[in-house]
Amino acid sequence: MAVALKAPTHLAPVPGVRLSTCAAGIRYRERDDLLLIDAGPDAAIAALFTRNAFCAAPVQVAREHLGDGRARWLLVNAGNANAGTGTAGLAAARGTCAALGRVLEAPPQSILPFSTGVIGEPLPVDRIEAALPALAAGLDPDRWMSAARAIMTTDTVLKGASRTVALDAGTVTLTGIAKGSGMIHPDMATMLAFVGTDARIDAGALRELLAAAAEHSFNAITVDGDTSTNDALVCMASGASGVTVQSAADRERFAGALNALCLELAEAIVRDGEGATKFVRVTVQAARDPEEARRVAETVALSPLVKTALFASDPNWGRILAAVGRAGVEDFRIEGVRISVNGVAIVSDGGRVPGYTEEAGQQAFGAPELDILIDLGRGSAGYRKYTCDFSYDYVRINADYRS
Amino acid sequence: MAVALKAPTHLAPVPGVRLSTCAAGIRYRERDDLLLIDAGPDAAIAALFTRNAFCAAPVQVAREHLGDGRARWLLVNAGNANAGTGTAGLAAARGTCAALGRVLEAPPQSILPFSTGVIGEPLPVDRIEAALPALAAGLDPDRWMSAARAIMTTDTVLKGASRTVALDAGTVTLTGIAKGSGMIHPDMATMLAFVGTDARIDAGALRELLAAAAEHSFNAITVDGDTSTNDALVCMASGASGVTVQSAADRERFAGALNALCLELAEAIVRDGEGATKFVRVTVQAARDPEEARRVAETVALSPLVKTALFASDPNWGRILAAVGRAGVEDFRIEGVRISVNGVAIVSDGGRVPGYTEEAGQQAFGAPELDILIDLGRGSAGYRKYTCDFSYDYVRINADYRS
Repeated sequence: MAVALKAPTHLAPVPGVRLSTCAAGIRYRERDDLLLIDAGPDAAIAALFTRNAFCAAPVQVAREHLGDGRARWLLVNAGNANAGTGTAGLAAARGTCAALGRVLEAPPQSILPFSTGVIGEPLPVDRIEAALPALAAGLDPDRWMSAARAIMTTDTVLKGASRTVALDAGTVTLTGIAKGSGMIHPDMATMLAFVGTDARIDAGALRELLAAAAEHSFNAITVDGDTSTNDALVCMASGASGVTVQSAADRERFAGALNALCLELAEAIVRDGEGATKFVRVTVQAARDPEEARRVAETVALSPLVKTALFASDPNWGRILAAVGRAGVEDFRIEGVRISVNGVAIVSDGGRVPGYTEEAGQQAFGAPELDILIDLGRGSAGYRKYTCDFSYDYVRINADYRS
Repeated sequence: MAVALKAPTHLAPVPGVRLSTCAAGIRYRERDDLLLIDAGPDAAIAALFTRNAFCAAPVQVAREHLGDGRARWLLVNAGNANAGTGTAGLAAARGTCAALGRVLEAPPQSILPFSTGVIGEPLPVDRIEAALPALAAGLDPDRWMSAARAIMTTDTVLKGASRTVALDAGTVTLTGIAKGSGMIHPDMATMLAFVGTDARIDAGALRELLAAAAEHSFNAITVDGDTSTNDALVCMASGASGVTVQSAADRERFAGALNALCLELAEAIVRDGEGATKFVRVTVQAARDPEEARRVAETVALSPLVKTALFASDPNWGRILAAVGRAGVEDFRIEGVRISVNGVAIVSDGGRVPGYTEEAGQQAFGAPELDILIDLGRGSAGYRKYTCDFSYDYVRINADYRS
């Protein structure tokens, strides 16, 4: 069902970063569901976590262990989110870190736990612990593809991408993997994304660049507006290339590659959105300020009426106009708004563009990828939001029993 | 498909208020689609309109004509919303008022126009004007049932209710009708509700009471979160009973009847919500302030994940917890939150209630009417929101072509 999305055939190893996966039998049978990443002894790590007040136990422990950016290991499981599990869940997250610490002979504080899967079920700690020795023994730099596969839940396509970027002192690699397609059935909560690079950069700078990259990628996508309890985006810089990101020009080049990589992974999540048959960019321009642009883009991208019309390939522009109108923009004059879809001008002067035909509209809305451009005609700020349509399959996927 | 909703068999006439309907052929065949209400020469009228910045032409004209509450006539059509129609739409709304004014020998400013139906199509002014003489000739106090029928679009059940209330100086009647079930296919936008009473009350006081009644009824319901371009709630007080609402006790009694009437009509809209198979009350209590309570109730009531789980009768409490968590409450401790559904305690101390069983949960979620109670455990404010579930039929209804 994914919209124009193909799995990569290979992901570039990142010097200094090793990965290992194995089948712990947490929920799935006959597939890997546990991932260990070693970011290297000198790694700088930056992470962004869900803003959901009810964040899952592993999120709480990972945030605590990461502190100012000095950690080394990531332990990720699929099949169980360890969310809504109270104090027992916290103990389970800490317990798996302690057990892995014993296997690796590393302090538990150097380990960040991540979980994705069913909410409200106890984490099967014993099965995870039993798998740890084999997991630790299998670390290898060329395991990004199997890592991407091990963190999938109801994803239909494996998600990953690589970039290289030439800096003053040499070339560095970035490889990232992601999973998620909504807050997924059966409660397979969580957007997770892990990016590794061999660049040398301090944790503070990495955090800034990652936050900026997320703003226009992972924070700009929506499938159904529900923020999961487990969302996490992590960037690990092993420093193994010996190439330091230092000059302003280098910083800009590195940021450019990180932004592009994050956007590719974020787009992949939307293209593989639950039940998605369309991939949609909602671009707002000529807003008074970025917040206004963001609000309008978000209201349109989240509207169930707009999304069902997109599913039907129905040029139902009145719904877009109505969504723009309820976005809470102050002193709004409908006459100044212009709307076009895939280049077809549809709305101006408060109504249909003269000469607009239903046929032209149907052609525009019939495409599998849609660019909805909304010009507010009152300023110079803009924002772009990425979303998908709302289909029978979304309801089916989310209404199915969890059994 | 409506959830436990039956049409009334009779609606009480309101002394001083007359109604008439006829078939103008605006969009439908062989049914009335035009309604005229005469609120009487001394009527006080209060109205609340959509907050959508792109309000329809009739909303703009009605707001302008109503001014400080002195108007007499309401002209309502179904089948065409006259929204997204630019300056031509405004001219059409003014034109129908002028034409009716000539028929009634009344100033156009005494006429309030309302439209509901397809967005973006020109209003067929000629057909409406041709029907006006017959419409004006048919005015009668006992026409509330046919009035309720004439304003239906994709509603599956006629909506109306009557109340009487004993005040110090005598008894007064309230009768109201409403239409709407989301922002309805095929773009049959609009929630419309008209309430008449023979009480004597000044327009300012009526406006206050109506705003208060709407806050916990029409403003507390959501089918899909989309605010239409045409929403309107109007209350007309003919004064024909000679009974004035004056003392504080009378005011309270009258407000009680108005609140109950508005809530019954608002609930009817949700019960007849697009594709609804469940009727759901989301009650938040022990919040720090009413705004916080409202935000949490709204986030849960709007969550597509919660609504699809409700459709499936799936006791998927993790989705409710996750929605509460992303509602933006400050300094929120998950441990303090308690959630129960139809009396079954489900969440406390950040996880499942000890002794909770999937069977008990399935029984609670399996009912056609659900009371979701969310206790935030941090204050004394509360709010209740009314919603329905999210079904295949919602997608079908909204994804169907408009042809």
